[in-house]
Amino acid sequence: MSRYVAGDLTDAELILDRCNDLAGISSHPDYLERVHLSPQHREANDLVARWMTEAGLTTWQDAAGNQCGRLEGREPGLPALLLGSHIDTVPDAGRYDGMLGVLLAIQVVERIRLSGVELPFALEVVAFSDEEGTRFGNALLGSRALSGTWDDDWWKLTDKDGITLAEAFQDFGLDPARVHGAFRRPGSLIGYLETHIEQGPILEDADRRLAVVTSIAGARRFAVTITGKAGHAGGTPFDRRKDALVGASELVIEVERLSKQYGVIGTVGRLQAFPGGINVIPGRVEFSLDLRGEFDDDRDECLRLFTKAAEEMCARRGLGFDATEIYRADAVMCDPALKDAIAAGIAATGDTEPLAFWSRAGHDGMAVVNIAPIAMLFLRCRGGISHHPDEAVKKADVAAALDAFEAAVLSVATSR
Amino acid sequence: MSRYVAGDLTDAELILDRCNDLAGISSHPDYLERVHLSPQHREANDLVARWMTEAGLTTWQDAAGNQCGRLEGREPGLPALLLGSHIDTVPDAGRYDGMLGVLLAIQVVERIRLSGVELPFALEVVAFSDEEGTRFGNALLGSRALSGTWDDDWWKLTDKDGITLAEAFQDFGLDPARVHGAFRRPGSLIGYLETHIEQGPILEDADRRLAVVTSIAGARRFAVTITGKAGHAGGTPFDRRKDALVGASELVIEVERLSKQYGVIGTVGRLQAFPGGINVIPGRVEFSLDLRGEFDDDRDECLRLFTKAAEEMCARRGLGFDATEIYRADAVMCDPALKDAIAAGIAATGDTEPLAFWSRAGHDGMAVVNIAPIAMLFLRCRGGISHHPDEAVKKADVAAALDAFEAAVLSVATSR
Repeated sequence: MSRYVAGDLTDAELILDRCNDLAGISSHPDYLERVHLSPQHREANDLVARWMTEAGLTTWQDAAGNQCGRLEGREPGLPALLLGSHIDTVPDAGRYDGMLGVLLAIQVVERIRLSGVELPFALEVVAFSDEEGTRFGNALLGSRALSGTWDDDWWKLTDKDGITLAEAFQDFGLDPARVHGAFRRPGSLIGYLETHIEQGPILEDADRRLAVVTSIAGARRFAVTITGKAGHAGGTPFDRRKDALVGASELVIEVERLSKQYGVIGTVGRLQAFPGGINVIPGRVEFSLDLRGEFDDDRDECLRLFTKAAEEMCARRGLGFDATEIYRADAVMCDPALKDAIAAGIAATGDTEPLAFWSRAGHDGMAVVNIAPIAMLFLRCRGGISHHPDEAVKKADVAAALDAFEAAVLSVATSR
Repeated sequence: MSRYVAGDLTDAELILDRCNDLAGISSHPDYLERVHLSPQHREANDLVARWMTEAGLTTWQDAAGNQCGRLEGREPGLPALLLGSHIDTVPDAGRYDGMLGVLLAIQVVERIRLSGVELPFALEVVAFSDEEGTRFGNALLGSRALSGTWDDDWWKLTDKDGITLAEAFQDFGLDPARVHGAFRRPGSLIGYLETHIEQGPILEDADRRLAVVTSIAGARRFAVTITGKAGHAGGTPFDRRKDALVGASELVIEVERLSKQYGVIGTVGRLQAFPGGINVIPGRVEFSLDLRGEFDDDRDECLRLFTKAAEEMCARRGLGFDATEIYRADAVMCDPALKDAIAAGIAATGDTEPLAFWSRAGHDGMAVVNIAPIAMLFLRCRGGISHHPDEAVKKADVAAALDAFEAAVLSVATSR
């Protein structure tokens, strides 16, 4: 077991170098943004495919733009244990959310190939095309295609330039009519394991490197529109105003208040006032609402009270309210046996009683669970920061995660 | 005086038709937006120049992109009475704010030319290039160039695409180094008269058509930035969040509260959260603040309290606050003699005791007053609505405004 003690800095350095390489593939000169089906997505897929090939995997891009690779097990054609994460980013992103999990998976497969161990299953690595939903608002498009939970209504989703998802598929060289080709038969995968930065401060506060994920919080996302009436800022007295922005501002504050009260996590991440003239009363405000919690019931109660508050505010201010659900995922439990394998992997790095807690963030496993059991390994990140350029990990933690993830894969083999 | 009774629908119809023609010159297919130094500005200037020529004016475009025309008085080269308004719009604009004043001025000059009356001054018409400040945030750029109050710091202002004002001048075919050529010597203008829709409900509520403007409210505009820290919506607990949008929302509400309390007019017309991901806590919010009032002292006290509230909120939430003043105009009084001429003009339409009140909105006269006395005629608009496609005027009111404005010009001649 000497390979599994933390401290193999060479592999960790390679992974961190590759995170930097991927971070250089951005649609913005000043910050990292790489969205679904963009030219940068193309470039990143090609680079990841090269690394997969170098690691000894056979590679392909599936019908939904997910970059895939495979190493056969002790005989060809066995069901596969799928490892991976996603390759897309939020705007002004950090360089570890998603990418690190893809690169760790590639490295684990290479290590196992080089070790000569024959596994009773194939290993596959996937770099999911879209987890964040930055471009089309609807998250997990890559893993939903793979898991056969695609909805043809999504073809009409548009990005900020008015390009539909169907058009973006074609621009990327994909055929929307063939997206179902990305669907994996349930029996073809024995499970899905993902390593991801924690995106929270629990590990750092506890001075621990790695954790077992127990469940992934359910999230609901809404596109909210508040409609008032535009008018000249100077000429419209307050008693005649229907200012959509003052109304929306009340709701942003209400989201925070209700979330704290109900122990759920509510965020308005996107908000814009229209028409947007300095001297024009906002006639319309569009904002996003993301609500998530460990328990779906709390989240849904919070949503009910938010809607009630919005309707009361709109009645008082003469405004219109619309909230369209654009994403819904209920809480997902990690598989007990795969969780045990993750815990065994962490134990192999010396932490025999690893922390175990729920993921506040959504992950591709929420879609993959429809066709295979899932589990996740969390890795400490600095200050709990993610979705920000300050995202950072320690090299030693990456080395530990690599060892733990490899040991977890071998543990799955042993327990079968 | 039979020409001056309300009801000359032919001229009013022509003016309204031309408002429709100008409204068709838009950078957006779905709504009217025509900003400073845009291709649409070029097209509108050319059309207005044609109408000026047809009305018998000699025309030129000045060094700041203002479209000008002139009819000589009883002898060539006399100082001029300047009539006009602006030709730019807010986003999703109505079709009368600005344009109507330009078209009324052209029609008044044509009527006087056709009448054969010889005036002791020349008449000039101006279609100011930028009054709203939509593109560069800084309003009155056209009239400030004409009045010699240009500030070379403005060349560095940028539009939403990062184009500087200097570059926009060049793209329009203007030479930034020559902008001072637009400056009018104080002695060259005897005054400035403008007709504008009221942009408020006072005339409609009083069932009156026209009003004398007594003063133009002073306004101050700020670009406000609230700085927090972006982070993953799921992974960042509330006690670690520095959410710039929740903080900004408190301030939007505070602007409304303070404005009502102090009888001033405060508006946040533009607000956007960055980076703008659905599942990312906003790390930065940028918004505009427009504060105006009849009395500068009230406005400035309101600003002081807003700043205090912002600093308190930011200290409480761990946010940063910056407010950069991008525009400042103190209240401007209309000239008594020119106000009398406007009142005489309205009286000529049968309303011998016209309403007189202050303009809540800013106007080009605020800049022109630096080189010449100013006065304004207000025209009723439907519901007090402006800066919105629902902006509307009655044809009979336009006819009355045309008669009153012509009579006002003749009254200036009589009183000299």
